[in-house]
Amino acid sequence: MNWMISSQNVSEMLLLRRCCSLTRCGPISTRRLKVAPAVTSCAARFCSSGSEDQSSYQCANWKHILAGLLAGTGAVLVYSQHRHKAERADVSVTITEKGSLLPVFSQDEVTKHRSLEDGVWVTYKGGVYDITEFVAMHPGGNKILLAAGGALEPFWALYAVHDQEHVLEILSEYKVGELCEEDLKKQQASKPSDPFSSDPERHPVLQVNTLKPFNAEPPPEILSDSYITPSAFFFKRNHLPVPQLDQASYRLQVEGLPQGVLSLSLEDLKTKFPKHTVTVTLQCAGNRRGDMNKVKPVKGLNWGVAAIGNAKWSGARLRDVLLAAGFEPGVAQWARHVQFEGLDKDVTGTSYGASIPLNKAIGEEGDVLLAYEMNGEDIPRDHGYPVRVVVPGVVGARNVKWLGKIVVSAEESSSHWQQQDYKGFAPGTDWNQVDFESAPAIQELPVQSAITVPADGAVIHHSDETLTVAGYAWSGGGREVIRVDVSLDGGKTWQVAQLRSGDKGQAPEPSPPPGRAWAWKLWEITAPLPPEAEELEIICKAVDSSYNVQPDTVPPIWNLRGLLSNAWHRVTVRLRRD
Amino acid sequence: MNWMISSQNVSEMLLLRRCCSLTRCGPISTRRLKVAPAVTSCAARFCSSGSEDQSSYQCANWKHILAGLLAGTGAVLVYSQHRHKAERADVSVTITEKGSLLPVFSQDEVTKHRSLEDGVWVTYKGGVYDITEFVAMHPGGNKILLAAGGALEPFWALYAVHDQEHVLEILSEYKVGELCEEDLKKQQASKPSDPFSSDPERHPVLQVNTLKPFNAEPPPEILSDSYITPSAFFFKRNHLPVPQLDQASYRLQVEGLPQGVLSLSLEDLKTKFPKHTVTVTLQCAGNRRGDMNKVKPVKGLNWGVAAIGNAKWSGARLRDVLLAAGFEPGVAQWARHVQFEGLDKDVTGTSYGASIPLNKAIGEEGDVLLAYEMNGEDIPRDHGYPVRVVVPGVVGARNVKWLGKIVVSAEESSSHWQQQDYKGFAPGTDWNQVDFESAPAIQELPVQSAITVPADGAVIHHSDETLTVAGYAWSGGGREVIRVDVSLDGGKTWQVAQLRSGDKGQAPEPSPPPGRAWAWKLWEITAPLPPEAEELEIICKAVDSSYNVQPDTVPPIWNLRGLLSNAWHRVTVRLRRD
Repeated sequence: MNWMISSQNVSEMLLLRRCCSLTRCGPISTRRLKVAPAVTSCAARFCSSGSEDQSSYQCANWKHILAGLLAGTGAVLVYSQHRHKAERADVSVTITEKGSLLPVFSQDEVTKHRSLEDGVWVTYKGGVYDITEFVAMHPGGNKILLAAGGALEPFWALYAVHDQEHVLEILSEYKVGELCEEDLKKQQASKPSDPFSSDPERHPVLQVNTLKPFNAEPPPEILSDSYITPSAFFFKRNHLPVPQLDQASYRLQVEGLPQGVLSLSLEDLKTKFPKHTVTVTLQCAGNRRGDMNKVKPVKGLNWGVAAIGNAKWSGARLRDVLLAAGFEPGVAQWARHVQFEGLDKDVTGTSYGASIPLNKAIGEEGDVLLAYEMNGEDIPRDHGYPVRVVVPGVVGARNVKWLGKIVVSAEESSSHWQQQDYKGFAPGTDWNQVDFESAPAIQELPVQSAITVPADGAVIHHSDETLTVAGYAWSGGGREVIRVDVSLDGGKTWQVAQLRSGDKGQAPEPSPPPGRAWAWKLWEITAPLPPEAEELEIICKAVDSSYNVQPDTVPPIWNLRGLLSNAWHRVTVRLRRD
Repeated sequence: MNWMISSQNVSEMLLLRRCCSLTRCGPISTRRLKVAPAVTSCAARFCSSGSEDQSSYQCANWKHILAGLLAGTGAVLVYSQHRHKAERADVSVTITEKGSLLPVFSQDEVTKHRSLEDGVWVTYKGGVYDITEFVAMHPGGNKILLAAGGALEPFWALYAVHDQEHVLEILSEYKVGELCEEDLKKQQASKPSDPFSSDPERHPVLQVNTLKPFNAEPPPEILSDSYITPSAFFFKRNHLPVPQLDQASYRLQVEGLPQGVLSLSLEDLKTKFPKHTVTVTLQCAGNRRGDMNKVKPVKGLNWGVAAIGNAKWSGARLRDVLLAAGFEPGVAQWARHVQFEGLDKDVTGTSYGASIPLNKAIGEEGDVLLAYEMNGEDIPRDHGYPVRVVVPGVVGARNVKWLGKIVVSAEESSSHWQQQDYKGFAPGTDWNQVDFESAPAIQELPVQSAITVPADGAVIHHSDETLTVAGYAWSGGGREVIRVDVSLDGGKTWQVAQLRSGDKGQAPEPSPPPGRAWAWKLWEITAPLPPEAEELEIICKAVDSSYNVQPDTVPPIWNLRGLLSNAWHRVTVRLRRD
């Protein structure tokens, strides 16, 4: 989700949430329909048997309904804002049907309206829309201006979030005319193909957050079954369509060093540099965002606890490649960052991008890889084929996939995802006041843990005399997890879990040097079931080698983007006595 | 406090606490006197006008009473255990007075009893005691065997914790005879001088935790008045008497490298290596232990929030000295640690010692100093004159003072303070089950912050329309504090504080490179007083550059040694409306 909301109020978010929670309980009341029809229709739609992009939402599950709604939160909120404005201006909201008495425009005429001064016009399915006034309200910000003077369809194909009824409803209010038949036919003839049509196949067990771009996580209980996460089950976090890249023509450009540009083929990477293999856990900055959404809605994919995985990555060390490209100590006098650019592109040709501090990139102990293998095989397309950066201990967002370019630079990446996203803010900061320049880009992540077994809401039979609780724990920056405490009584008492760095019955991975513990620990505890209890609130919390701990509760770390969600993880199970 | 309790129960600690809290409220009931007379007498004594070592305890202050009690916790608990044992065996507890019918022994006879097999005898003020059975119960562990066959006085002079009535009461039960007059006179003639008699003068503003060894912190409101803490106000944490060292004869030995031992004079350190100055915050692992004591008594000095300070340290880089002593990359094949040994010694000749990981010691970005200046002057005696190690980002306990020896080694320091202390444990771990080998030695500390102004319990006048809250924030491992959130309503809402890296009106220190933010930030917020409130619960919590945060509450991080106390800091103030 790379759109931005710049001017709506969090109280409107609460409206949305209230509406959602009522929707799941029974029929929608007339009053609520009046308040926010788009919201309720949206909720209702997600609750009907899944279709198209939403087929993966499991409607019986409240979390998934909320997830669906949040995928469209920005647009819904804009609708609410827009509606409010329309009411104030006493403009009746009517949907203009094709064939009305509106004027007919040629494409040339539409094309003249490409700026706020000349007006911003777009076409959609033969209609002409003057969206000048809407630009300031667009959740995706100024990016909407890229569509000015042309058709919306190719953009909406890329940003599937627009494919919702209420978005069409908003659009309809801006209709000013019809596109002439001739130009409409030309448009239809050049109808763009779905940019996601060449995305790879995925395993059906994945719980899909959005299909386009593809974002999905495995069921939690699968995650803790294997110390090394099979790539098929490793969470996928794509911002754009998966690019189709060819091993033979692939080139990696290294720029910004005194020797000029170095261009490397995949063969070069594999043969000219030593191959290193490092076991590294990657975690999305939004992992466990679902817990924040329960406190107060946030903007972003509604991840559960499984937007994290642990794999063996093999490739050339970034350090070695930078040295080969001419890095020498003098460069550190002016350079501060190493930028990465992906080969995935949006319709404007903009690639995903990010950067990391120079000392992490060049340090002997940084272990940053230009990886071409994941778990001993070519990196799968969803994970960055043929080459991705693996930055151990650092948030997933900097581990750029489909790597096309490396730039040694005095400045951070200017990418949207480095500057306007993936930063943390105080719980009181809302979208009206947030200043993205005031917070540093997330690099190292804080200590984290979660329970994968049992599932929240599970029913345990008292005939089982013991209960086994399992999960994972990890910390950023190479800080090893040294302890996981588990409580079966909501935090009153704590037991220390067994940690492991390998699969059961197999030799654990060797202990990492201090500060280079890049891989998670799996943990488990088997405890007697309290004889009288009817319900257990199970909690886990981890401690890392710097003795950092997880915060107790979510609200004090809540932030408007729902990032860095690392409060104690809690699940509640019921005990049945039959 | 370097004694160990190995076999008592935390429930006994609760007894102690209950007893303390009753003591401050009113007269001691007879029943309680029966249960634990030593405990109550101890509490009562600390409440009487202070004398000797305890003169600095402010008896009006509950925290200080508790501090005093805790200084003797180990002994008190042992008393309880011992008493219990005596009762079980139906042994009546009588204090044997001098002149009783007990036999008279010569010093030679006493000296024959120096082992558990031969019996462990000691003398004290002319009495002879067979403490064989007590050895297993001694809070200081086997160290008591060092006194076997001789006089207790020199040991008790060093470990002032023994100077309490209940300790004498325990001892009295083991009396087996009298020392003959002649030998008693010899002993008295060689009466040891007070090993602390040459300790330096200290500033009277310091709040003293123990006088011998000297442990003290400044009043919190002084701490936040100055970005650089003057050395007079910098907390003092001594484990042993301050050694008297002479600049001319001082030598630093560097061992464990292939070239053999390197011996350096102070002049060598100053002239043969470049002088580096680094601003580094040092924090005691026990800072804010007082907050843990409020939850459940812990063993250790009852520090408030000011066992932390920030100074400019100057000296040679440890890295440079190790390279000069013959460190080369091959050493890293077998070496893992760098050990430090102080020139302070206990009666057995054992020095304070600690170690840090090799990569911290040798890394170019570790910034470890062999410092000979503090804030531009020779390091004061209390802070390690003439040379101390300064290990930025790492717990105070590894910043060894009065440095005498450096050893590059495959192993950690075997020192008590590295192996049997300064480690973190789960809240459920008690002294019966604690396994010090199961936890890593504390090195980097977690993120921390505290309120220094206003003081807990302060009264604010409503005529002041605004309230200014100030404090410090710091994190270990070079992680910069990026935000401090302050709540005036017990955590319901949060405001972001202003951070500074210098004194008001002066240029801040330059921004550190990533991962090398060794100095604290001072912070401040001025907010309107809520018009209706009668009381405010003020809270602060910090976020570091890895987005680690402080935990909400103390109980889930409580540990038997009261270390790593970094939960949100809370103070309550009352508002007066006149």
